[in-house]
Amino acid sequence: MNYFSSDFKLGILGGGQLGKMLLTETRKFDIQTYVLDPSDEAPCKIGSNKFFKGSLMDFDTVYNFGKQVDVLTFEIELVNIEALEKLESEGIKVYPSPKTLRLIQNKGTQKDFYTTHNIPTAAYKRFENVAGLKQAVADNEITLPFVWKSTEGGYDGNGVKVIRNTDSFNNLPDVQCIAETMIPFKNELAVIVTRTPSGEIKTYPVVEMEFHPEANQVEYVICPARIDDAVADNARAIALKVSEHFNHVGLLAVEMFQTEDDQILVNEVAPRPHNSGHYSIEASYTSQFEQHLRAILDLPLGNTDSKVAGIMVNLVGEEGYSGSVVYENIEKILGQDGVTPHIYGKKETRPFRKMGHVTIVNQDIAEARRVAQEVKNTIRVIC
Amino acid sequence: MNYFSSDFKLGILGGGQLGKMLLTETRKFDIQTYVLDPSDEAPCKIGSNKFFKGSLMDFDTVYNFGKQVDVLTFEIELVNIEALEKLESEGIKVYPSPKTLRLIQNKGTQKDFYTTHNIPTAAYKRFENVAGLKQAVADNEITLPFVWKSTEGGYDGNGVKVIRNTDSFNNLPDVQCIAETMIPFKNELAVIVTRTPSGEIKTYPVVEMEFHPEANQVEYVICPARIDDAVADNARAIALKVSEHFNHVGLLAVEMFQTEDDQILVNEVAPRPHNSGHYSIEASYTSQFEQHLRAILDLPLGNTDSKVAGIMVNLVGEEGYSGSVVYENIEKILGQDGVTPHIYGKKETRPFRKMGHVTIVNQDIAEARRVAQEVKNTIRVIC
Repeated sequence: MNYFSSDFKLGILGGGQLGKMLLTETRKFDIQTYVLDPSDEAPCKIGSNKFFKGSLMDFDTVYNFGKQVDVLTFEIELVNIEALEKLESEGIKVYPSPKTLRLIQNKGTQKDFYTTHNIPTAAYKRFENVAGLKQAVADNEITLPFVWKSTEGGYDGNGVKVIRNTDSFNNLPDVQCIAETMIPFKNELAVIVTRTPSGEIKTYPVVEMEFHPEANQVEYVICPARIDDAVADNARAIALKVSEHFNHVGLLAVEMFQTEDDQILVNEVAPRPHNSGHYSIEASYTSQFEQHLRAILDLPLGNTDSKVAGIMVNLVGEEGYSGSVVYENIEKILGQDGVTPHIYGKKETRPFRKMGHVTIVNQDIAEARRVAQEVKNTIRVIC
Repeated sequence: MNYFSSDFKLGILGGGQLGKMLLTETRKFDIQTYVLDPSDEAPCKIGSNKFFKGSLMDFDTVYNFGKQVDVLTFEIELVNIEALEKLESEGIKVYPSPKTLRLIQNKGTQKDFYTTHNIPTAAYKRFENVAGLKQAVADNEITLPFVWKSTEGGYDGNGVKVIRNTDSFNNLPDVQCIAETMIPFKNELAVIVTRTPSGEIKTYPVVEMEFHPEANQVEYVICPARIDDAVADNARAIALKVSEHFNHVGLLAVEMFQTEDDQILVNEVAPRPHNSGHYSIEASYTSQFEQHLRAILDLPLGNTDSKVAGIMVNLVGEEGYSGSVVYENIEKILGQDGVTPHIYGKKETRPFRKMGHVTIVNQDIAEARRVAQEVKNTIRVIC
């Protein structure tokens, strides 16, 4: 197949920032793209060949969109899987496959998958509803504190809560859920694995999420993770094992915990470009977005090594500000060496909304970390 | 001024590959763009906020386009300067300025400028027409061989000829021209300089154009140039001097000769992103396109150092092929480490048409050069 400057069409479900950064690569290779998104102001409206407004959860909308393209991918997991299954059965290439997506979309099924395949993960129990969960606590089958996770629809920290006392039950929605043992961990790590339909596999280096010491929020994604080589090798090997069992096509971001005694436990996966890989645009020989494109088109995968150390800082809307976004002091951070802002193109800011990210690269990771802190302290997403 | 995700509008005259690569940066920063180009199939049609089809040489078209934007720039020198002058007088920021463009657009004026400012350049004489040139040869005022250059309208090697005998005169167009002493040179070098309205100036490292041993055609642009540090320092200093005298805003690519005795002579300049800076997308901390954007918006300039060595290979249409383009063996070159193709998005190939370029990056410049040769020998732009 001749993808470049041809009639070949790639469809992308979802038109957010991940899609937008993927479009940069499709433009670089001159690959035709169709994008479907419910919002008329989606970041992908500019940069795609054709933009369609419509629901990603509606069977007919997704099916009719998919029938127009040669290869279909997605930048968000919350899409109509039945439509993907029908499209696949009718010969459209859907990558990652609806089968992979089904395994991942439900966090209970995803946990069972790890257990079945002997992949280390925190102990858990599945429940059909809150009543079942409460009974288990009453019966001392599970003990406080534990981590509650809604099995479906969770996103960016929604659908996850630490339950420390029985009062916390009262605010939980009555949905299918899991209760997971709380793991005291040293580090939260991630590894992105890419796989092609032909079976070529490559892993990116291990990255580290550094949390704010008080607010339990990721502040920096750091590549390479500042951990022992043996731990990094183990994390990469486990991510590879996860990837091999999912048998996915495209990117798979594997999030993991490094426990106090240096065990690696898989937390969850995402079958798409991932926040933990944004650093790769500036730091890696091949960005995760180019790599995803290479994978789903069954082209040779690129080098996943880094040219330099990379740190990513998320730009989220500041509390107390809702309205037309202003990036205060952005000209100041541009005056620092190796700083690249990525502004997603959302016009309205809201508290904690992901509006962009900033990458800091440097030969010296300590210097990158220093600049990252300065970036974090300087820029404000307000209105 | 708040450029990011705001109502601010950047206008770009010309919608070719240079504009397309600039649009990648405007998308990254979410800056609104209007593009004017005569072709309905211009590469910039996708990726700009608004695309206008129209002549870049027509006063009214350029003027009416420019009135809609806040800052106006161009990716090609062949634009209506009178319209730019009127726009500037009416308060539109035009960068580079029409004054800079006037000095550069005419190669005779450009050469006089170097002489006036004591910038080393090959000896030359100006002529109003072919008759004057012939008379000068007949009178032995200039001796064969020499380099003939049309003062206006030259592009990509058009309008330049080596005149070795009087017969060669017969095919020259009857236009204003210069006759330049032929300089035996070791290397053709280039330095990109960037300047902001506030006067911040940064230079990129010296790059080297490696020619095909027989076909007198640039095959590779190599960064850093494989020359002595003293020669590189001198080239960078001379480029800086050129930039200071032009007092331009935005990028200025300064092309130079390194003579047999290591003198640096300025050949010509281009006030825009330049083929010799394409390597910077993958190799530099700040690509030339991001740098141009930073400059014309008067933002702090980025680090011009390289993360790794970079080599660029132009992808031009192969002789004997005209029609719908096919990039033969592109999947093979993607299998090499550090190889990134940039496909400009022109649908039709013609002999020698610039269809794209490939960047090869590596920590080791000798290894990059080896891969570049393999890329050059493998890929074919045919139909």
